[in-house]
Amino acid sequence: MRNIKVEQLVQTPVENQEIELVERKGLGHPDSISDGIAEAVSRALCAEYIEKCGAVLHHNTDETQIVAGRSSPAFGGGEVIKPIYTLLVGRATKEFNGVEIPAEAVALSAARDYLRKNIVNLDLDRDIILDCKLGTGSSDLRDVFGREKIPTANDTSFGVGHASFSELERIVYDTEKQLIGDLKGKLPAIGEDIKVMGLRDKDDISLTVCCGMVDKYVDDMDAYVSFKEQMKDYILDIAGKYTDRNINAYVNAADNTADGCGCIFLTVTGTSAEMGDDGSVGRGNRCNGLITPNRPMSMEATSGKNPINHVGKIYNLLSTQMAWDIVEAVPQVDEVYVRLLSQIGKPIDQPMAASIQVIPEDGANFATVQDDAEAVADEWLGNITKVTDLVINGAIDTF
Amino acid sequence: MRNIKVEQLVQTPVENQEIELVERKGLGHPDSISDGIAEAVSRALCAEYIEKCGAVLHHNTDETQIVAGRSSPAFGGGEVIKPIYTLLVGRATKEFNGVEIPAEAVALSAARDYLRKNIVNLDLDRDIILDCKLGTGSSDLRDVFGREKIPTANDTSFGVGHASFSELERIVYDTEKQLIGDLKGKLPAIGEDIKVMGLRDKDDISLTVCCGMVDKYVDDMDAYVSFKEQMKDYILDIAGKYTDRNINAYVNAADNTADGCGCIFLTVTGTSAEMGDDGSVGRGNRCNGLITPNRPMSMEATSGKNPINHVGKIYNLLSTQMAWDIVEAVPQVDEVYVRLLSQIGKPIDQPMAASIQVIPEDGANFATVQDDAEAVADEWLGNITKVTDLVINGAIDTF
Amino acid sequence: MRNIKVEQLVQTPVENQEIELVERKGLGHPDSISDGIAEAVSRALCAEYIEKCGAVLHHNTDETQIVAGRSSPAFGGGEVIKPIYTLLVGRATKEFNGVEIPAEAVALSAARDYLRKNIVNLDLDRDIILDCKLGTGSSDLRDVFGREKIPTANDTSFGVGHASFSELERIVYDTEKQLIGDLKGKLPAIGEDIKVMGLRDKDDISLTVCCGMVDKYVDDMDAYVSFKEQMKDYILDIAGKYTDRNINAYVNAADNTADGCGCIFLTVTGTSAEMGDDGSVGRGNRCNGLITPNRPMSMEATSGKNPINHVGKIYNLLSTQMAWDIVEAVPQVDEVYVRLLSQIGKPIDQPMAASIQVIPEDGANFATVQDDAEAVADEWLGNITKVTDLVINGAIDTF
Amino acid sequence: MRNIKVEQLVQTPVENQEIELVERKGLGHPDSISDGIAEAVSRALCAEYIEKCGAVLHHNTDETQIVAGRSSPAFGGGEVIKPIYTLLVGRATKEFNGVEIPAEAVALSAARDYLRKNIVNLDLDRDIILDCKLGTGSSDLRDVFGREKIPTANDTSFGVGHASFSELERIVYDTEKQLIGDLKGKLPAIGEDIKVMGLRDKDDISLTVCCGMVDKYVDDMDAYVSFKEQMKDYILDIAGKYTDRNINAYVNAADNTADGCGCIFLTVTGTSAEMGDDGSVGRGNRCNGLITPNRPMSMEATSGKNPINHVGKIYNLLSTQMAWDIVEAVPQVDEVYVRLLSQIGKPIDQPMAASIQVIPEDGANFATVQDDAEAVADEWLGNITKVTDLVINGAIDTF
Repeated sequence: MRNIKVEQLVQTPVENQEIELVERKGLGHPDSISDGIAEAVSRALCAEYIEKCGAVLHHNTDETQIVAGRSSPAFGGGEVIKPIYTLLVGRATKEFNGVEIPAEAVALSAARDYLRKNIVNLDLDRDIILDCKLGTGSSDLRDVFGREKIPTANDTSFGVGHASFSELERIVYDTEKQLIGDLKGKLPAIGEDIKVMGLRDKDDISLTVCCGMVDKYVDDMDAYVSFKEQMKDYILDIAGKYTDRNINAYVNAADNTADGCGCIFLTVTGTSAEMGDDGSVGRGNRCNGLITPNRPMSMEATSGKNPINHVGKIYNLLSTQMAWDIVEAVPQVDEVYVRLLSQIGKPIDQPMAASIQVIPEDGANFATVQDDAEAVADEWLGNITKVTDLVINGAIDTF
Repeated sequence: MRNIKVEQLVQTPVENQEIELVERKGLGHPDSISDGIAEAVSRALCAEYIEKCGAVLHHNTDETQIVAGRSSPAFGGGEVIKPIYTLLVGRATKEFNGVEIPAEAVALSAARDYLRKNIVNLDLDRDIILDCKLGTGSSDLRDVFGREKIPTANDTSFGVGHASFSELERIVYDTEKQLIGDLKGKLPAIGEDIKVMGLRDKDDISLTVCCGMVDKYVDDMDAYVSFKEQMKDYILDIAGKYTDRNINAYVNAADNTADGCGCIFLTVTGTSAEMGDDGSVGRGNRCNGLITPNRPMSMEATSGKNPINHVGKIYNLLSTQMAWDIVEAVPQVDEVYVRLLSQIGKPIDQPMAASIQVIPEDGANFATVQDDAEAVADEWLGNITKVTDLVINGAIDTF
Repeated sequence: MRNIKVEQLVQTPVENQEIELVERKGLGHPDSISDGIAEAVSRALCAEYIEKCGAVLHHNTDETQIVAGRSSPAFGGGEVIKPIYTLLVGRATKEFNGVEIPAEAVALSAARDYLRKNIVNLDLDRDIILDCKLGTGSSDLRDVFGREKIPTANDTSFGVGHASFSELERIVYDTEKQLIGDLKGKLPAIGEDIKVMGLRDKDDISLTVCCGMVDKYVDDMDAYVSFKEQMKDYILDIAGKYTDRNINAYVNAADNTADGCGCIFLTVTGTSAEMGDDGSVGRGNRCNGLITPNRPMSMEATSGKNPINHVGKIYNLLSTQMAWDIVEAVPQVDEVYVRLLSQIGKPIDQPMAASIQVIPEDGANFATVQDDAEAVADEWLGNITKVTDLVINGAIDTF
Repeated sequence: MRNIKVEQLVQTPVENQEIELVERKGLGHPDSISDGIAEAVSRALCAEYIEKCGAVLHHNTDETQIVAGRSSPAFGGGEVIKPIYTLLVGRATKEFNGVEIPAEAVALSAARDYLRKNIVNLDLDRDIILDCKLGTGSSDLRDVFGREKIPTANDTSFGVGHASFSELERIVYDTEKQLIGDLKGKLPAIGEDIKVMGLRDKDDISLTVCCGMVDKYVDDMDAYVSFKEQMKDYILDIAGKYTDRNINAYVNAADNTADGCGCIFLTVTGTSAEMGDDGSVGRGNRCNGLITPNRPMSMEATSGKNPINHVGKIYNLLSTQMAWDIVEAVPQVDEVYVRLLSQIGKPIDQPMAASIQVIPEDGANFATVQDDAEAVADEWLGNITKVTDLVINGAIDTF
């Protein structure tokens, strides 16, 4: 019997609240780069451990610190003046049953691979310094990580999730995803450092998008202005698919295009980490890809933590999955909020508290909702190591 | 005319929700140490700028990274084996009108001072490495920082605050504060690394407290167990002042006191940063001192940001102040949630949106509440630089 | 009139002394890697300065520090466990007449290029961390570096050179050069970390050669032993061309081939920097490529210093060139020792002392020798900036 | 039977050569600070190992790297703008028979102690960053370090020494020693960064002394000029005790006292490491305290190496001791040069070659000299571990 509480929440659904705020930091935002590297390192370590030792061993690499560089962007192509400094931080098991695991070498290599694939205009030979300080993980955890039974929680902490997305949440999320995944194919000037801030004031949505443009693909101010226009049109198109509300979009609103390229958001590498913006793990998107101050959130960084027993990772991912499944599987549900609290040392499939708050549709039979929601939650907890597998296989995002 | 929206929120007040979670990371938690250093460095820079240049100049030092060390605690006194590594990160103006500002020297000195005062059993000569990478702040910001008029927002971002505290919030907050501020005077074995996790399940409150005990003040396991008992009693006393609900308290619940000092939470320095726990800014308490997944929160790190134009700092502090003032000044208000959204480049006293959500008491006249709340908000925005002064004078906490 | 003193030295020529010691650290020795990187960085900066500013600007990058990694070599191919850490240190002008020079980016890129070309089995993505701390060079030196007239000495220091080489010096020098330049083409297992220690005890020469073999090209112990034999034969061949004395050669003399690959000099990357041997600039070969305790030497690091006014570089290179030219141009000369002393702030073509010590052949007319030697020295000093050009063009070795 | 060769050297004694150069870098020169820290760390580790394990364990800490800061000196007291960065580098045994040794904590603490005592005007809280990267020493060396028998050489390398000192050598050595040890007591403005360059041109000696003056003890230019005068007089006094030759002394010869304090050698901390001068181990004085290009020298850094089996340290110290003892114990000896060459893996009391070159007085009986010198050398080799004791007890200088 698990301690699952399904509670009816009397609350104005977010969609009906007057003011709603939603933010997404794109792949190239310094905080997201930190998240991405941290998670890539953890995945690479998982693979290395499995290959060498047959099981994932203890590690947490959830503390990458990016120290911004300095750059001198210019139409047609400038240069990075002072390289970005990046410190990979965490712990990892470096020896197990006589087998040495090259944790820091694996981490460096994974970080470079990640950057090569995701921040495509960053010159890894001259624009960035990658440093690494991985402490030693406790080898006493071999039982935990042997995975013969359910792991025990590494800490007392909690995860939070909600479903489904509001219109604004969908729009903000998709805007960034498609600008990089689709439009960038046609407009290579679009850098990966995109921040989307969505504000809904009753039925007026405004999307403020900041995007670091890549200078070598921008010949002059006319080109720059034209690219912004194309992005704006594209964004309005995306948003229009999700809503009938009024939409306004602003791209690089702080630009002063009259005053030369020093006053626009032009970059050499596509990320503001090249010029003054530091970054670190866990300060950007939650594991659902968004920052949503109208929703409950957890402060735990999901990226980089080990997917075996770190509840700060597993419970955030699980809460989110659970919430989506409840919304899909249970009729008459408007919104679902899930909070999972662990107790250090207890099996992770037995949370100290599993709180499920449901805003039902008007007229719903809450007793049925309650039973159905609890069943979904119970099944997920019974299969909690599935979250671990999804993470190791790279089938689930963490930011 | 400011864009202030006061909205009635139909919502089960947190006090009446079935499950409530509240967490506080104490002064010596690695994330809090990062916050504390970051803010101490910013305050020291403010003082230096004012002394040398007559005004606070551009800086943001909100990215301290702590890489945990390794230690060998022992009853009666062990030792740190591998020093903690701490990297101070950020940007600061280093030259202004021909005056050089020793930003990194000031930062180092401030960080050491902070540690000396707050983590009292840390040997600064051998237990910690303090490194520093402060980039150059943009000197173009002199107008902004000249303070002759209202500064303009450095970014598009938002702050969030709420009031008043639920019973559980008060208890969690006070527990950590008084353990250090009061009980530690009598029990020097109490280390500064205290984490309080509060769970309320209807009318049952459980407080899970993790506290790194300082080994040199703990002679043996009996003493350790006795200290835990004294802490538990003390905590129950505190909690009893705020609630009539049932209270349970657990101190270092994961201890296995049968298996020697390797299985209890014993430390040399009073912080787990000595042994495996990394830390960074903005991943712990929000600026009200708590982590509250039943409340809206902001992801912005408040500590270390400049108090002049960084809305990620000012709007979080201001939202919180505003919420408390509304609760105090406006009758018939149960809960207040404030969200302030800036637009980059616009004066910070003119937020793009100021959303105030109120859960009124039953039968309240919402129109009156609305007017009164708006007045409070408007007055705070009209005096926004007061937040700056409070920060510079050290009169306001950031974590 | 320059202060050139040609003095007759009454001395047993080195070739006739009973005991002679000569050492050469090859390209892949950690100290030589430091030298090589330091010089590569300086050359890259020279090129950058010339391209952007029309002249070489102030810099000194003569302090690369290598912190050894840890590795796990194995027949057929092992791996680096802990990456080598390399810190590029020095100063460089980063701004000149409004032009920004990306000194650290140039340095990183040059260091990587150097390693890619010279330590061919080092995986730059995972086996090494390249960090960089270049301070700011004094921009007041623009007159010095403008090169319209003879630069003034940056310091009071001296350079030392001698000619010609003894038999042992030639042998030691050539052994390392040809093992890498020639034999490695056929035996890829030869790593770049070769140290040759030559001892001549009257007419018995012993060459002790340490060479880190590259594990992926060594299938087993038999192959290893066979490679050592081939190297020994090759070395005896080389040496035989220069001397009629008895020669013994020892390759990896400390190997214990009976005890498995942990007791032989096997490496993953070809350099012992992967496993325990740190390195820094200026602690290996003098600028003639050798360490010769039977000869006068200077302690100045030649590599990485700027070639414009750093006498610690220029005077060492010049002394050596001068000595060789005297030996070639002046008849009846057995050995020549040159010492050049600068005085800070004085033109570098006017040394405070230029001491030339000559051991003439028996029966030589020393007055003639004196005049001729002085003429050679005077001409070199009159064309001292030729040394600068040779360095910039990469036409002269520094270690 | 040891391989000791005593050879008569036919050579103009240095005292009779026309040109002689001698240099000493004082305690506060960046290279000497590196040497001093490296040796202090090694001594502290020796003490720690002896206390915890009963014997000195494997370590080498001979690679401290100093990256210069930036400062703004001013009459009456300026400040350090950018802290000096210092990286302690090396290897050390961190675990032995289950005992953990806090090598990095010991190193940090020893380095701070050393700086506190020797660079007295450096503010350790704000003027310097001390970082540390000590790799793991091989624990297989326990036999070597158990000291039950004669240790075996860690490498094939050599040490070099000579005796006695020429007039110029004595003068240069004593000048620095007494300026700090005596005159600084009366003139606190004298900083520890003193470089003495001695040139003897036949019977004319010139001493060029560079000394970083400490600004807070220098009120104005008049005071500065006066202090230089007092130093000059003091230096001439010292030199006069050792020679009848003509002496000239120059203190801070490059000063331009007409142009303000930017053109004189004024410092905040007493060392030029505060402003542009990097430093590293082994690039300054040889273990006799001098740099002597008229004498044979070794390139091996003596400071920081372990005193048990690192021949690069032991043989340099031993050669020097041997040379002095021969000069003292054997009549009719003018100059002695000692070179000791080890072979890796062989007992250190059995060098591969021990070359003793003697310039006897005119008319000496060389056969007697030969026997006596060999006896001295043989006795020292028979008691070679006495060198180790002298180092551990701090009874012998290394730079």
